[in-house]
Amino acid sequence: MEVHKVVSPPHKSSFQKLKARLKETFFPDDPLRQFKGQPLKQKLVLGAQYVFPILQWGPNYTLKLLKSDIVSGLTIASLAIPQGISYAKLANLPPIVGLYSSFVPPLVYAVLGSSRDLAVGPVSIASLIMGSMLRQEVSPSKDPLLFLQLAFSSTFFAGLFQASLGILRLGFIIDFLSKATLIGFMAGAAIIVSLQQLKALLGITNFTKQMGLVPVLSSVFHRTNEWSWQTILMGFCFLVMLLVARHVGMRKPKLFWVSAGAPLASVILSTLLVFAFKAQHHGISVIGKLQEGLNPPSWNMLHFHGSHLGLVMKTGLITGIISLTEGIAVGRTFAALKNYQVDGNKEMIAIGMMNMVGSSTSCYVTTGAFSRSAVNHNAGAKTAVSNIIMAVTVMVTLLFLMPLFQYTPNVVLGAIIVTAVIGLIDVPAAYYIWKIDKFDFLVMLCAFFGVIFISVQEGVAIAVGLSIFKVLMQITRPKTVTLGNIPGTHIYRNLHQYKEAAGVPGFLILSIEAPINFANTTYLNERILRWIEDYEAEEEEEGNKQQSGLRFLILDLSAVSAIDTSGVSLFKDLRKIVENKGLEASTLELQFRIPFFFILLSSDCLESQLVLVNPLGEVMEKLQRADEAHDLSRPDCLFLTVGEAVASLLSTVKGQSSSHV
Amino acid sequence: MEVHKVVSPPHKSSFQKLKARLKETFFPDDPLRQFKGQPLKQKLVLGAQYVFPILQWGPNYTLKLLKSDIVSGLTIASLAIPQGISYAKLANLPPIVGLYSSFVPPLVYAVLGSSRDLAVGPVSIASLIMGSMLRQEVSPSKDPLLFLQLAFSSTFFAGLFQASLGILRLGFIIDFLSKATLIGFMAGAAIIVSLQQLKALLGITNFTKQMGLVPVLSSVFHRTNEWSWQTILMGFCFLVMLLVARHVGMRKPKLFWVSAGAPLASVILSTLLVFAFKAQHHGISVIGKLQEGLNPPSWNMLHFHGSHLGLVMKTGLITGIISLTEGIAVGRTFAALKNYQVDGNKEMIAIGMMNMVGSSTSCYVTTGAFSRSAVNHNAGAKTAVSNIIMAVTVMVTLLFLMPLFQYTPNVVLGAIIVTAVIGLIDVPAAYYIWKIDKFDFLVMLCAFFGVIFISVQEGVAIAVGLSIFKVLMQITRPKTVTLGNIPGTHIYRNLHQYKEAAGVPGFLILSIEAPINFANTTYLNERILRWIEDYEAEEEEEGNKQQSGLRFLILDLSAVSAIDTSGVSLFKDLRKIVENKGLEASTLELQFRIPFFFILLSSDCLESQLVLVNPLGEVMEKLQRADEAHDLSRPDCLFLTVGEAVASLLSTVKGQSSSHV
Repeated sequence: MEVHKVVSPPHKSSFQKLKARLKETFFPDDPLRQFKGQPLKQKLVLGAQYVFPILQWGPNYTLKLLKSDIVSGLTIASLAIPQGISYAKLANLPPIVGLYSSFVPPLVYAVLGSSRDLAVGPVSIASLIMGSMLRQEVSPSKDPLLFLQLAFSSTFFAGLFQASLGILRLGFIIDFLSKATLIGFMAGAAIIVSLQQLKALLGITNFTKQMGLVPVLSSVFHRTNEWSWQTILMGFCFLVMLLVARHVGMRKPKLFWVSAGAPLASVILSTLLVFAFKAQHHGISVIGKLQEGLNPPSWNMLHFHGSHLGLVMKTGLITGIISLTEGIAVGRTFAALKNYQVDGNKEMIAIGMMNMVGSSTSCYVTTGAFSRSAVNHNAGAKTAVSNIIMAVTVMVTLLFLMPLFQYTPNVVLGAIIVTAVIGLIDVPAAYYIWKIDKFDFLVMLCAFFGVIFISVQEGVAIAVGLSIFKVLMQITRPKTVTLGNIPGTHIYRNLHQYKEAAGVPGFLILSIEAPINFANTTYLNERILRWIEDYEAEEEEEGNKQQSGLRFLILDLSAVSAIDTSGVSLFKDLRKIVENKGLEASTLELQFRIPFFFILLSSDCLESQLVLVNPLGEVMEKLQRADEAHDLSRPDCLFLTVGEAVASLLSTVKGQSSSHV
Repeated sequence: MEVHKVVSPPHKSSFQKLKARLKETFFPDDPLRQFKGQPLKQKLVLGAQYVFPILQWGPNYTLKLLKSDIVSGLTIASLAIPQGISYAKLANLPPIVGLYSSFVPPLVYAVLGSSRDLAVGPVSIASLIMGSMLRQEVSPSKDPLLFLQLAFSSTFFAGLFQASLGILRLGFIIDFLSKATLIGFMAGAAIIVSLQQLKALLGITNFTKQMGLVPVLSSVFHRTNEWSWQTILMGFCFLVMLLVARHVGMRKPKLFWVSAGAPLASVILSTLLVFAFKAQHHGISVIGKLQEGLNPPSWNMLHFHGSHLGLVMKTGLITGIISLTEGIAVGRTFAALKNYQVDGNKEMIAIGMMNMVGSSTSCYVTTGAFSRSAVNHNAGAKTAVSNIIMAVTVMVTLLFLMPLFQYTPNVVLGAIIVTAVIGLIDVPAAYYIWKIDKFDFLVMLCAFFGVIFISVQEGVAIAVGLSIFKVLMQITRPKTVTLGNIPGTHIYRNLHQYKEAAGVPGFLILSIEAPINFANTTYLNERILRWIEDYEAEEEEEGNKQQSGLRFLILDLSAVSAIDTSGVSLFKDLRKIVENKGLEASTLELQFRIPFFFILLSSDCLESQLVLVNPLGEVMEKLQRADEAHDLSRPDCLFLTVGEAVASLLSTVKGQSSSHV
């Protein structure tokens, strides 16, 4: 039988390896590939298109595309105006800041962003976190100007952090927020946000400043005397209406406009009702007078020093990463649906720039909103022009329509928020996770209950910590499985998984299913010893005279992707142990121990042997480098497949013995 | 050709899986195995032997063993007495505490410990750390009693922490101190310890309180006026003598007694010299009067509350983990040499109990010392009785010989410490690490320079952090390699590593070499897309008419040991992308695109296809559970080996086409 040699990959210097490694870490998508071999002029054009994606699709823009974008732009504007006002209130900011934030950032994104479906603006979760974090140090009611300044400053730092992540190509950091963490976190945040709306929905005036489930509910039920039946009735009617519209929109995607238009319709209807019945005098609170005009500049309001700097940076960091995660996830989801690519790091720079520009034009933190982007997509958006249309609509509103919102009741804004965030609770996804991976489900529950009962930041931190802990545990306790031969083939597979597979007498074939490093060398050593003992105990138990003792320990390294210095010493230790095992068997037992081969072995090959199979490139290299000392990569204990190893070793044993007879 | 089915492992409930997982995590060595199926009485005997290993080897103890143990016991005692005094001074404790600590702990270890070679007592690094950490809050010269109390309390917490790690079976935590970290850390600590000895070696009276390289050297050279030539001369002579003795002992293991006896000989010789020349009046500082008698009880000196509790617990934790690491590593090293097993968790309980008992009998933190254990082993120690002999010798010293040490000069103690710690600098090991793994070398350097320039704790923390970061990076950026066929076989291997391997036209065969989880799903998605693009670009470049386009993307999952919910969605996304790729190819191109098979395909099978190969147990299970939604585990895109997949897919394609012609 032909035996194939295991070889090392071609030699590379440490510097070349480092370069390849760094490239793979920071430039996995190889963004400069398209520049290769182009003339200088073309390179400049490509470079400009890379920085401003609008230059890429802009020249090919057609009237037909514009039609689709106008429809979708108007649709999301009808959603963005009431949501903007609502979310700003959620962040304890003046309602108009929500509209400012729906005007400038979408324009910036249209120039820099590469997603065609993202609808940009304020979002519920980031608004909630910013509001609650800043309120820890400054009261929005007692010192509204300072609060506003801190909000803009936090937005600046959020943008700076987001853009830096993109420029430094550290975008993979947001990957550590796993799907399970996000689902749990979003559901928890939805509940926290909805609870905050009880203030508006019940008409309570002295609402608690805390966010947790327990303090909010206890505060609500301790103030039943403040409940206003007019507000509750109105809120209930509009909530039912909005939920029905949402349901219709979800069930029939063609009727998306029902759910998309419902918030604006509610705002108009409720404003008319209040105006007609003078309901503001009957216990229904309204937004009140709003300033007219476009975004005033705010760069003079940014705080880069002073006593609140720590809070501002922390708030920026957390809202930055949370809103970034939402924006990137939304962008990727719709890119996958329409089969185009979104470059994560580039998107981060776009979102970061948008927030930095926003912070100096009276906008607070914005990103791509999930619900509005879905509506945008359903309404047929083709390019980022839909964001421009939305921004123009918001501009018109800011310039001319602000007085109309004076009588809009707060209760309707609460109902709009509840309807929007209820979609963040994804029960089927939670069930799917439960079905596939119980540990992921645990991570999800930790995120959910952590957010509800402790705080948004800590809930997420616990879930991320738990996810990383799981990965580390997988490394610390890697799986080892015994392999057996699938009859009639040279294939060796897990004996436990494949019932038809059968062990080869005298051979213990183990597969190690993880990189071998400092964190698991000790464990692997102990575990492999136990496999050997189990193997020997089983042979003894069977008590058959056909037993052959352990002759060969074969380690299949196909799944060992990397190894370090501790890992190399594992093989050295194992070899010593295995060879000692063999020597322990006295030569007297010889004739009884190996009758399986119907032969008598010479005593010098009684010694058990450690055999390595299919070391991958890096592992093979390190074995060779360690070789002077340990002689691990000599050809007679290194094979390309388990099948070849077994066949070759069996024939050697037979050969040796027959020559001896 | 016969095709083998991929199957799931037998069904297990989540509870069973959790149980198996917990067992593998906390009981990898299955310590209760020997109890299985034994009668109750035998179980009790085995249990007692498990807790007190002395009951296991004690009954078989013979006079012959005793002889060996007496020789080795006396040898290590001659080393332990001067080292005990020196290390106690290193920890800023009265010298006699070093002798106390060489009396009680070895007796406790002899009863509870399972190593036959460990020589127990105070060690340099733990002494250094304890002394420097406690000195941060309390001055050993101004308030010696409080300092002593804190040292005993820290020792108690160190023991408690060590024993808890063992009882809770969390021993694997010390595995995170990788070999590279330890080598760097020990070399750094050796330098820090040696620098501290400049005080004694140069005869400086006002020495700096800091530990770092820079402050110590600057202090030493700013106080040249305090240098005492008598001390320097004496120190130099004895240092040379000790180093020569050490060198002899290392070169000829049979002359181990030269290096083992040298410290005691130096102490005796120098004491006689001082006594004869009354050198204490000529600038040579001596130990001074020492108290006689055995260890006084000290449990009333333990602090469990009060202002220093935090420091005491922190010191206990750090000295505990550092001394534990040394003790376990030493025990394992010699167990491997003599081919017996040391149970890490059991050893932790033994070392922990020894320190808890020690803390209430005037001992400070102790463990198995590397240098003394090596001498013990070379001197022929057979069992822990050598520790008992050593303890008895120290007892005799404490009772009757203490006045003899009154004139022992401090400079000799300094020389003894320097000679002992110089062996901790392991240059060949550092070179070996450099040769095998550059990143491990970086970790080592960080530990080394961190310890020298920052502090012992922070140096180690940086190195451990870096090691874990590397592991996480391996997960975040797993390797993907293209496979090709090794001619004349059904074996597929890395095209880059095996130059003779050849790709199969129309097939892109990728192997993913890591578990697929939340941290790398995005990366893998991008990377695999780039592989596809590269594949297509290469085909275009070659420009041959024989090109066949991408027909099958085969993912070899042999090295994917685990998967989570994010990982499952990767396959779903990839399938969609691959199928779209196929559809993009217009039917017109058909005749040109697949002439490789010399056939015309019906348009319905133009579609590219994603094929999975050899999913391991857990991965297969999760694919099946996700199946209702994604249809990933249907037999026609799931194969046992790459060879079977390629053969089977090629024959299907041929079959379809010929039926069409």
